[in-house]
This record gives sequence, C-alpha cells and structure tokens, in this order.
Amino acid sequence: MATLEDVLSTIDADQGEALARLFSLLAIPSISAIPAHFPDCERAADWLTRELGELGFEASRQETPGRPMVVGAAKAKARDAPHVLFYGHYDVQPADPLELWTTPPFEPRLADGPNGQRIVARGACDDKGQLMTFIEACRAFRRNGGLPCNVSVLIEGEEETGSPSLPAFLAKNAKTLKADLALVCDTAMWDAKTPAITTMLRGLVLEEVVLHGANRDLHSGLFGGAAINPIRVLARVIADLHDADGAVALPGFYDGVEELPEEIAEQWRGLDFNDEKFLGEVGLSVPAGEKGRSTLEMIWSRPTCDVNGVVGGYTGEGTKTVLPAKASAKVSFRLVGKQNPERVSQAFRAFVKARLPADVTAEFIPHGASPAIALAPRGEALRRARRALEAEWGKPPALVGSGGSIPVVGAFKRELNMDSLMVGFSLEDDAIHSPNEKYERASFHKGARSWARILVALAA
Amino acid sequence: MATLEDVLSTIDADQGEALARLFSLLAIPSISAIPAHFPDCERAADWLTRELGELGFEASRQETPGRPMVVGAAKAKARDAPHVLFYGHYDVQPADPLELWTTPPFEPRLADGPNGQRIVARGACDDKGQLMTFIEACRAFRRNGGLPCNVSVLIEGEEETGSPSLPAFLAKNAKTLKADLALVCDTAMWDAKTPAITTMLRGLVLEEVVLHGANRDLHSGLFGGAAINPIRVLARVIADLHDADGAVALPGFYDGVEELPEEIAEQWRGLDFNDEKFLGEVGLSVPAGEKGRSTLEMIWSRPTCDVNGVVGGYTGEGTKTVLPAKASAKVSFRLVGKQNPERVSQAFRAFVKARLPADVTAEFIPHGASPAIALAPRGEALRRARRALEAEWGKPPALVGSGGSIPVVGAFKRELNMDSLMVGFSLEDDAIHSPNEKYERASFHKGARSWARILVALAA
Repeated sequence: MATLEDVLSTIDADQGEALARLFSLLAIPSISAIPAHFPDCERAADWLTRELGELGFEASRQETPGRPMVVGAAKAKARDAPHVLFYGHYDVQPADPLELWTTPPFEPRLADGPNGQRIVARGACDDKGQLMTFIEACRAFRRNGGLPCNVSVLIEGEEETGSPSLPAFLAKNAKTLKADLALVCDTAMWDAKTPAITTMLRGLVLEEVVLHGANRDLHSGLFGGAAINPIRVLARVIADLHDADGAVALPGFYDGVEELPEEIAEQWRGLDFNDEKFLGEVGLSVPAGEKGRSTLEMIWSRPTCDVNGVVGGYTGEGTKTVLPAKASAKVSFRLVGKQNPERVSQAFRAFVKARLPADVTAEFIPHGASPAIALAPRGEALRRARRALEAEWGKPPALVGSGGSIPVVGAFKRELNMDSLMVGFSLEDDAIHSPNEKYERASFHKGARSWARILVALAA
Repeated sequence: MATLEDVLSTIDADQGEALARLFSLLAIPSISAIPAHFPDCERAADWLTRELGELGFEASRQETPGRPMVVGAAKAKARDAPHVLFYGHYDVQPADPLELWTTPPFEPRLADGPNGQRIVARGACDDKGQLMTFIEACRAFRRNGGLPCNVSVLIEGEEETGSPSLPAFLAKNAKTLKADLALVCDTAMWDAKTPAITTMLRGLVLEEVVLHGANRDLHSGLFGGAAINPIRVLARVIADLHDADGAVALPGFYDGVEELPEEIAEQWRGLDFNDEKFLGEVGLSVPAGEKGRSTLEMIWSRPTCDVNGVVGGYTGEGTKTVLPAKASAKVSFRLVGKQNPERVSQAFRAFVKARLPADVTAEFIPHGASPAIALAPRGEALRRARRALEAEWGKPPALVGSGGSIPVVGAFKRELNMDSLMVGFSLEDDAIHSPNEKYERASFHKGARSWARILVALAA
C-alpha cells in the first residue's frame, strides 16, 4: 500500500506537468466583474469540471443566476474516512491598469525572483494557483491508490464580486455539500518560510453610490458657480467618512466591534511583524488608519471603510471645462466582530443622503454584504493541520487574522453549520488584485505537498 | 454698385449651400484635446485655408508648437476702409459621453426644435457654426463687388485647450494681425429673439493634480486601514476648496476681485433674467454658488472654482476591492477683475500641498491660464454695432457679461493692444461642450446677415 512518502514523491516528480496544467487554467480570462468575460468564466468552469472528472471525481458544472459552480465528489479508499469539502474560486479580478503589467496578464509565464521562480499572471495566486495546490494533491493520491478522506469540491466563479449566488446554492445543495470540515485555500503564509492558518476573517459590505445633479453635462464657463457640481458633493461625503483620528464616522458603525481578546493580542505582539517592512514594500512609511491602533489591528481586527474607485466628469487627456451631470464612488467596508452588514449599508446610505444639497439625488447599487467571522477550531482538526504543516515547512504555522473577506466561510457556518480550515500559500508581495500578480513556484509545489499531509493527518 | 440689401439677399438665396459647407466642416472631428485627433485638426485647418482662398483671401495654414493657425487677409474695395481682424476657432470639445448623443457627433444633421430647424453636431455652435456666419457674410460681399472693410482672419485650433500657442503667435505676427478692431464670434445671444454684445469675460486657470500614494494598487482587504488612500486625500482637498457659504477657500483667491459697478448692476437687474428658467432647463432649481450673490453675478462677474473631472481606482463594472496608487482631478478657476492667474495657480498648489499626509505626493499639470477682461468699448465701434444688430433683429442688443473665457480677447489686448467686439449667436440651450450640441439654423442665417450689417456699419 502506498505511503504518504509515495504521494509526496509523485507530487515532486509531477511538478512540470502540474505547472503546465495551471498555465492552461491561467490563460482563461475568467473575470467575473466584466460581462464580456462571462463566457470565459464558463470556460474556466468547464475546464475544472473536466479536470476533476479525469481525477475520478463525479464532477459537474451547475448553473446559478450568476456564474456557474463546479461541484465534484470522490470517495476515500477507507470506508470510515472523514468527509472534507474543499472550496476555491476560478474567477479572477479585472486586470486593469493593463499598462502596468510587464507581460500580458493572461499569458502566464515563469520569472525569477528572490524566492526562486515565480508564476506571473492574473489569478496566479488568487485563486487559481491556490486551488490547484489541492487538486494536484488529489491527483497524487489517485496515482497512489486513492484518497485518504472523502473529498467534495466546490469551486465558485463569483468570489471577486461578493459571491451573490453562493448562499442560495449552499442552502439548496446542503445535503451534498455538508461535510465534517471545509478546507479553504485562499489565504496567505506568514512569510516565505512560515505557513499560517487563518482563524479570523473580516466581513465585507460593497456599496456603489451615484450622485446625480443637472440633467446633462454643462459648460462650466456658462453654468459654473450657479449649477451644483456632483463631484463637490461626492468629495464632501468621502472626506466626511473618516474623522480626524482616522475612525469611520458613520453613526453606529462601531456597534458590535469588540476589543481584541488579550490572549490573541499577546500572540500578535509576539509575531515579528514589521510595520516598516510591510508598508515599505509598497512605497509607504506611515500607518494611515485609526490613531492608537497597531498596524496588525488595522488590517486584521479593526473595521475599515475604503473608497475603491471614484469617477466623474472629464477624465481623458487634456481638459474639458465641464460640470458633470453625475459622479460616482465604489465604497467597501471591512467588518469585524458582530457588526451587522445590513445596518452598515443602511448607515452609509443615510450618511450620504444627509449630505445631499438641493437638486442632487443619490442612487445606490449594492454589490454584496457578509459579516465577519472568527473561527475557534481549537479541536482535533486544527491540531492535526498544525502538525501536518509543521512537518512540511519545518516550523509551526502562525495562527493569524486576515483583513480580506472570504464570504464562503461565513456562508458555510450559516448555511451548513460547518467550520472552515483556512490554509493558503500566498505571500504579501503576490500583488493579488494588482498588476503583475504572481505565485511562488515554491508555494505551488509545497502547497500541494501540504495538502497531501493535511489530508493524511485528518484521516489518521 | 451693390447695396447692403443686395448682400443680404445673396445670403438669403445661398442658405442651402451655406449649410452644406458647414456640414462639411462639422464632419471633421477636430478635437484638440485628444492627440489621436491632431490629424483631424490639420484637416480642418486645411479646409478653412482652402475656403478662404476661394473667397479671395490671401490665406495660409501656419504651424505652431501645437495645432496650426489659419490666417487670411482680403482688401476692401475702398482704400480708406477700416481694418478688422475676425477671430474664430476650428477645434472642438471631446464628444464623450458618446452614448448620450442621439446621433453620432460628427455626422451633422438638421432636426426640428421650438425655434425652427437646428443643426446638430459637435461644434455646430462652438465654434464652427459661429465662425462660418462671418465667412458666409464675406462670401456674399465677394459676390456683390467686394468687402466694405479690410478683413484679416485668424482661426486657431487650440481654443478648447487653453490656446497655449496663441500669445507667442500674436507677438510674432503682430504686424500682420494688428487691426483697428477685433471681431470675435464665440458668444451667446440674450435669448432667441434678442442679440447681445459681450463686454465682460472671465479669465481661466486650468490645473490638473495627481496624488500618488503606494507604488502600486493594493488589495483593500490586505492593506485597507493601514495604507493611505489617495482618493480620500483628494476628496478632502476638493471638499475644502469651498467654504460653507460657497466661497472659494484658497487664501488670497479674492485679491483683485471688485464689486460690480452700480451702473452695470442696475442694467443687469433690468434684464428679465429668470433663475428658475435658467436652472430649470438643465434640471436644477437652486443656485449653488456664493451665498448673497445673484445668479447673474455667479455666472458673469464672480470668480469660481470647478472640478471638471475626477478619477481614481476601479471605475469599471461591478467591484474591485482595490486601494489605488493614485487619484487625480482636473480643476478650473474662472477669474474676474484683476485676479492674477499665476497667483491663483500657486495658491491652488500650496493649498493641495498643505493637505498631503505622509506618503502622499502631488504632481501638478498646468493646462493654461488667462486673466479676466472687461471691455469698455464705449466708442464709435460699439455704437455702430449696436445699431446694426438692432436693424437685423428688431430690438437693441443686450450688453452682457459672460462666464466663459475666450483667452484670445485678453491676448489681443495684451499682445496687440486691440479691443474686441464680441458678438455671437448661440443660445443657452445649445449644449456646447455637452452631448447633442446644436446651433439654431436661424442663428446661422441671421448671424451671417448680422455680420454683413456690422461690416457695412463699421465702414460707413
């Protein structure tokens, strides 16, 4: 009978072909935010369905009101093995600004970096590279006699747009998808040498607001001074969103936000987190958030408000003396603790409305909302996963929070009453959501080995 | 010998062909703000050079560091006739947002409107339709024995981008271009039945500011809270540009701004200007400018600050949880009285710099600057022009201010010590700089007749 060592050796021997398979998936521009790329999302779903089928999964593409889901299931070789549900997403962020990519975002390539070779492409890390670590681990088990756990797989195509179809899909397919534990591969390592398990996730509220003034764009020479300018109104709203100390100024915003438990604060203080290095890598030097909070608090355990985009009037080359008819902003809120997404959304809308002068109206477009989640899997699964990661990386994993939101983790808890084990292999400088996104080749390779170890540990 | 009546009859009889000529010019997308359209600007310049040549002008296209100038000169039939310099511009504003045009902006057409037929196209009014009124008047004189004045023509191609090449060109060609009086056709009528002569013009300072933060776009989930967001900083700058009473908050901004002379205030109070109608036509109801000022003051005699465009972060469909590396705004200032453009520009830059937190830098891109100008042509030329317009329209022209800026008028005064007579035939609802720009066919026709009468009156 094949051993874990056999499985790991298979992964090592199969690295080149695994990379080729990942490149094939990366070449599909499955951007879920842009309708022109919806067919590409379907291609990515079909690609994964085919791939899982070839690995012995009973796999199918399942339609939703949005992008399709890929669902697969494969039995363990042992009858009493535990049941895990692996989650990933095949959709990626838009690639703009294109001019900042050194090579085209959907033409994956290898490049050299300080940690060895890296895979460069949109989605190389988030989440195609990450999800393929798990699938490659499954492939190695198949070549060595079978899986140690019963494995279901759920890969969605709307993670980057707030997972609107996910809750209903989970509710409808609860029977098939409910497992003992969910495995989610969409998070980061502590550093290039230290793995991490994420146990706290912020929630996310996505709002778009469009302010409308005159019924058409006006000549600022003829109407400037007399006609209201929606850009000015929008700027006031955005400027007011934070107070002088960097706190979010929406009334009631901090309801449900709790101070960090001392034991966690203590563990975080023990991490060798370096503000200067963290910010210095992206060209900054001073933490810009709430006064009196550490940087780790700002990015892991405090709620935030960010304006992700703003546009109004003439933005082309040169000048155009126009008073625009409208101006708009995309605003996101990261939530923690017991903050209520619905209430935050309402507070934002009321906040905007309270700042509208005569003749300006606001249109609101919601883009999704999910609460924060704090995992406390102090039980057996977490203990086994820690041991497995330590065996692979030679040091125990850090238990960390994450500023990003993975709506599925909340949905798994809510809809399926299922905990999630969040293990991922991305690094801070992977530039996810940015130009020149990359994934370390070592992350891809050792990620697959890590999952092999975790699956064996969970079944032991 | 041909009489004025003969000339007017020729204009009447030639209306259809005059319209066809204008359509030919309107079909050239000579947008000076967009480099891809520079060749179209050259085509428009060549078109006008050819046209003037056919009318007996000694005409040529003359190169500048930017778009070319069209210069022409024709002698009067009488030796002691006065010398006028007619000014217009062949460049037009960008046509976006294209989706709001009911037909393509560079496919001119006739449509029906409350004042009869209208010509619809980008530039139909500003300034191709307007400048062609004068050229059609010249054509009618040529068919009837010759011009009553010595006429020079200067048509530039950078008016919509702040006329950067104009001052040096005037200085260099002062000898050729200096005339007794400049005639400028780039302004509005009082209403569809009442002509107007514009005697006050606001100046214009055009600034673009780009705020830079991190060295790349960041994931707001991973960096939000800790990394500075240039959109937030820009919003604060824009929000601070006006105080609670709608006044511009730049220190020293109002230096050189004088109260309106009582006699002019008196005349303006006598005009039947209706705030509700003026704003109502564009879907607004409340004047949004300085408290305690009338709407006419706001748009004619008070300085303003307008944000003409703003952009930062993700502005496509759906959402992208990005913290952008930069955000930018295009800001314009309308100047009056003795406000110094250079000082306003400096004050703006200092104002922005004073609001930059750590890690944010500002890049400034100037797009032109010109002072305000108040004309006091209380002499013979104004008296004659008033009489000529009254003869054509059946009522005396209103003497008005204008919120728009026509940099050439200041440059004529400064470089050539030459006064300008500003007569134009556009209407408030011509939607210049907006989608579906139009020019009344009556403006085009009676505009040409008006210039015929003015030229005869000036020569009498």
